[in-house]
Amino acid sequence: MSRRPMVRPGGRSARVQRSVHEAVRDLTAESGRDALTVPLIAARAGVTPSTIYRRWGDLQELLSDVAVERLRPEAPPEDRGSLADDLTSWAELFLDEMASPAGRAYIRDALLGDPDGSNAGQCSAYAAEQIDAVLSRAADRGEKTPEVEMVIDRVVSPIMYRILFRPTGLDAAYARRLTAEVLDDGR
Amino acid sequence: MSRRPMVRPGGRSARVQRSVHEAVRDLTAESGRDALTVPLIAARAGVTPSTIYRRWGDLQELLSDVAVERLRPEAPPEDRGSLADDLTSWAELFLDEMASPAGRAYIRDALLGDPDGSNAGQCSAYAAEQIDAVLSRAADRGEKTPEVEMVIDRVVSPIMYRILFRPTGLDAAYARRLTAEVLDDGR
Repeated sequence: MSRRPMVRPGGRSARVQRSVHEAVRDLTAESGRDALTVPLIAARAGVTPSTIYRRWGDLQELLSDVAVERLRPEAPPEDRGSLADDLTSWAELFLDEMASPAGRAYIRDALLGDPDGSNAGQCSAYAAEQIDAVLSRAADRGEKTPEVEMVIDRVVSPIMYRILFRPTGLDAAYARRLTAEVLDDGR
Repeated sequence: MSRRPMVRPGGRSARVQRSVHEAVRDLTAESGRDALTVPLIAARAGVTPSTIYRRWGDLQELLSDVAVERLRPEAPPEDRGSLADDLTSWAELFLDEMASPAGRAYIRDALLGDPDGSNAGQCSAYAAEQIDAVLSRAADRGEKTPEVEMVIDRVVSPIMYRILFRPTGLDAAYARRLTAEVLDDGR
């Protein structure tokens, strides 16, 4: 990601990025990701391989960028009217998405082709933004809320740790328990 | 790791493993890890490259095995006479080792060349064993203790999550705070 130049939306750079990301997703869907090579992706995207090497460095860094893009939340967290409901349903959805086969593959890709850690940091920033939205909404309602960093430590961290290092017991009940505990302690 | 046959300690297989691991460590120290190749490692270890490919699959899987070996704790956690002291000093040491440049490189290697997750699982098992030793000792003293899995969720997970995804604020004070909180809640 460090190699990526500033992107003007709608400019050539943005078009190249879009078509290359799209080529990665299409080729992965068609032939599986072990079949991906830079020349194959370049041909599908209608760019030269050197465009890809210049911009992303290598295949792993490109896959890391694509993964982060896929891990970007599509919508703000649902508003169910209370902090407990909002945070619980967000945590259940987060666990569900991250622990799915696709989610695990994206997390792995995001971490692997990321020499400077900026893509992993972006994944964490997405989670923090979603949590912040839930907490701010609750604060506006007058509810007492824990800090964002406390929710990262107590809900996001154990889910991600178990996905990467200890992949058992990852179900909705686990997400609900972590959420209930942080709300008990943090208010 | 799935390719590794059962190793009889002292047998040929154990000797090959030892010399190959040693070659990886020596070559990394001499030339840095970007210079590592299977033929180079084989030559240093006095085995053929095909021995390495047969046993480890590829360089990344070999590096993952070496990393897990390096992450194995060298001694049982220190006995300082109380649960709070033992768990706090273990957590400080754990953070210190894992967040060091070498620790980060080993965690990365362990995760990357680990298609079946067994090496990551082994890293987590090492931490769980150390925590279990601390908690069992405390229980023998008659102290009330939290569960191992609770310490994994509340101390190990946030440390590892921040190392991988959010690498700021990782100091001894953070390890102490996490430990104090889990002890408050878990007794």
